[in-house]
Amino acid sequence: MTRVTVWAEYRQERSDPAVGAVYPDGIHAVIADGLRDAGREARTASLDEADQGLSDATLAQTDVLIWWGHVAHGDVDDAAVERVRARVLDGMGLIVLHSGHHSKIFRRLMGTSCDLNWREAGERERIWVVDPVHPIAEGLGEGFMIDAEEMYGEHFDIPAPDRLVLISWFAGGEVFRSGCCYERGRGRIFYFRPGHETHPTYHHPGVRRVIANAVAWAAGPMGDRPERRHRPL
Amino acid sequence: MTRVTVWAEYRQERSDPAVGAVYPDGIHAVIADGLRDAGREARTASLDEADQGLSDATLAQTDVLIWWGHVAHGDVDDAAVERVRARVLDGMGLIVLHSGHHSKIFRRLMGTSCDLNWREAGERERIWVVDPVHPIAEGLGEGFMIDAEEMYGEHFDIPAPDRLVLISWFAGGEVFRSGCCYERGRGRIFYFRPGHETHPTYHHPGVRRVIANAVAWAAGPMGDRPERRHRPL
Amino acid sequence: MTRVTVWAEYRQERSDPAVGAVYPDGIHAVIADGLRDAGREARTASLDEADQGLSDATLAQTDVLIWWGHVAHGDVDDAAVERVRARVLDGMGLIVLHSGHHSKIFRRLMGTSCDLNWREAGERERIWVVDPVHPIAEGLGEGFMIDAEEMYGEHFDIPAPDRLVLISWFAGGEVFRSGCCYERGRGRIFYFRPGHETHPTYHHPGVRRVIANAVAWAAGPMGDRPERRHRPL
Amino acid sequence: MTRVTVWAEYRQERSDPAVGAVYPDGIHAVIADGLRDAGREARTASLDEADQGLSDATLAQTDVLIWWGHVAHGDVDDAAVERVRARVLDGMGLIVLHSGHHSKIFRRLMGTSCDLNWREAGERERIWVVDPVHPIAEGLGEGFMIDAEEMYGEHFDIPAPDRLVLISWFAGGEVFRSGCCYERGRGRIFYFRPGHETHPTYHHPGVRRVIANAVAWAAGPMGDRPERRHRPL
Repeated sequence: MTRVTVWAEYRQERSDPAVGAVYPDGIHAVIADGLRDAGREARTASLDEADQGLSDATLAQTDVLIWWGHVAHGDVDDAAVERVRARVLDGMGLIVLHSGHHSKIFRRLMGTSCDLNWREAGERERIWVVDPVHPIAEGLGEGFMIDAEEMYGEHFDIPAPDRLVLISWFAGGEVFRSGCCYERGRGRIFYFRPGHETHPTYHHPGVRRVIANAVAWAAGPMGDRPERRHRPL
Repeated sequence: MTRVTVWAEYRQERSDPAVGAVYPDGIHAVIADGLRDAGREARTASLDEADQGLSDATLAQTDVLIWWGHVAHGDVDDAAVERVRARVLDGMGLIVLHSGHHSKIFRRLMGTSCDLNWREAGERERIWVVDPVHPIAEGLGEGFMIDAEEMYGEHFDIPAPDRLVLISWFAGGEVFRSGCCYERGRGRIFYFRPGHETHPTYHHPGVRRVIANAVAWAAGPMGDRPERRHRPL
Repeated sequence: MTRVTVWAEYRQERSDPAVGAVYPDGIHAVIADGLRDAGREARTASLDEADQGLSDATLAQTDVLIWWGHVAHGDVDDAAVERVRARVLDGMGLIVLHSGHHSKIFRRLMGTSCDLNWREAGERERIWVVDPVHPIAEGLGEGFMIDAEEMYGEHFDIPAPDRLVLISWFAGGEVFRSGCCYERGRGRIFYFRPGHETHPTYHHPGVRRVIANAVAWAAGPMGDRPERRHRPL
Repeated sequence: MTRVTVWAEYRQERSDPAVGAVYPDGIHAVIADGLRDAGREARTASLDEADQGLSDATLAQTDVLIWWGHVAHGDVDDAAVERVRARVLDGMGLIVLHSGHHSKIFRRLMGTSCDLNWREAGERERIWVVDPVHPIAEGLGEGFMIDAEEMYGEHFDIPAPDRLVLISWFAGGEVFRSGCCYERGRGRIFYFRPGHETHPTYHHPGVRRVIANAVAWAAGPMGDRPERRHRPL
């Protein structure tokens, strides 16, 4: 069975009552619950644990890593980022959520700034499927609606996605490439937009379905480890 | 100088007063005027002319063909479609506008149904640039707004664009991949969404800028004509 | 279990002793045998059967269609081509082999000429994996060698593949994009280069592995059938 | 006029007589000469100059940077790499040559290992054009041959190129994606394979043509600098 580790900063939940009220045990706990409800196994890890929750041992036992970060990107050690990057290139799946767009690991794997526009106005978001045959779109139909979310707007400074699966519409007038697939080395990477810490977004059945589908996709075949070396005639 | 032919059905303008009021000389005339205002040469052609306006002679003198069709897709001869297709594959640029998504030529070049969702409610459309370095986005900034347009919504049944430049937001809640680039054979193809016949969309400066930019892009290099044949050792 | 139909012209095998010697029961029979050896179910169909082997009933019971054609592309009815195309857009996988590059169905789905260079010199071909994490590359390692094959060389006039999995090297000096994935509508399409009728290529374990992998890939998820229609507010 | 800076390590030319014999004034000097012959302006810079030849002032006056590195990738300061990366994301073109595949800047922008297979056997290389309409292929016809070069073979661990323009064939049996285009931020990046230091490759007219074409392409439009910030309603 696919071994999933849900990693989060788990700081605002403890320091900010408005966040703690929505996610008392942490965002990672709710995401992991959603995966278990979908019949998957999931462990949690967080920034203030030993090795920042990202030890070699943890990563070695992780097939898909889910990443939620926001206010503490700078506190993640470069060495931890490098451990995660090495595992992704060697085949571990990585699902980067919401404000993780600015995490060291996502920026490092993308090579770009990953900057975007934003607005915290608790506005309506509609998420549309633009690649209905992609495994991550399975069971979503045309998409779904979230009643209140933070807005993220284009331009989003990422490499053109290998596959663009979802586009968001916001009541305030913006659009956003919300579900983006990449393959880097032997690893599959999925960026998924929703999930501001003051909204109960990770309880939303559509959001949960996307994450569960993305876990299945990101755990997909990674082929043999290619040899790359001197090749005499 | 790039030789542009703006082709349109030019039927609703003559049969439907609501359309004729907006485009008394035809949609093609307004599009051609916009190009001339941008310093380009442009001729017009339409369905009820000799050879349906698509003779070999016309096509041979056309570097970029702009296509607007809606109610008469079925009246375009298959032979004319094949002439256009042959010219595109040999290097002529093609810009397909709005309801041209269902034209024989676009469907023939895409290979898919090109179906979509739609609604005529004269609602607000915002067009966002998601690939700001693409030549078609030049001078658009973040995008622009059209006060009243027909809605086109996903899922749009096209091959994944080689480059996705524009995404539309509609007040009614939908999104749409509005500016899509393709290369087929030696030809460049651009699909651009706006332009319902009852709205003055082709007078809009943003729309005009996109079309002028797309002409420049579609007239771009097409390389030598590759030889493909038996190759003895 | 995935229902595979292996379709071939099955003419040269009966008219040309040099071909009949290699494929006495037809190329389709050998391909189907290879799939059965890989634990798959496979039926065969051919051009001179009723409905050209491509009846609605056959297609309705086919999840993945494998296509081998060469000298009789022009004999395939346009109506049969349209039936196949409709099924592909509705989700049937399609694997087009070798000289099928010039089949009506492949050209129709690609929109381009699909022309290429060629040479029948029975030369060595090496097939290299350039996308080792793609499911079609599973178990191939770096690739494999075919002792004697027809040469196909660039430029191959196809749309840029959605995924390029394999590149061929030929002893005579050419290269070729040999394994190309496309998604069109709900269907997955794979073009695979090898398989000239005078060589025992479809007995080769590497070739058989690619075809079996491609069947698994092409039978993959196709999502719900999107609705595309008028959408009132 | 496009301002080009050709940067090279310029070490083996001074320390290794076999290299110095081929490039007595440095590889960068020969590349710059080739650009001047093509009617372009070009300056040179190298690793042992002040600021490693990559000062903010130099980069600010550079529209396209050409990079050749091999034995001293590790000696390039991280700060210099970051300066180059920032300029690329802000619109400077970057052309990475040959062994530059392992440079810090290329790996940083790609996010992957950029590993490959290699062999120094002075063997024949044929470079084939697979995207003849791309500006970088202009004037190349089907491609060209280099009599003796180092071999680079797949699998090359890069993100799938945004555009694949060239594929190499080697006499020893390998293939390689030799001309790869990327867009990152506002910048255009081209990786071009040939150029081992013991071969007179940068005197080859085909190689010179590719580099001159790539300069023109990489200097292409970069649009306005997008604003990405908080957007109140």
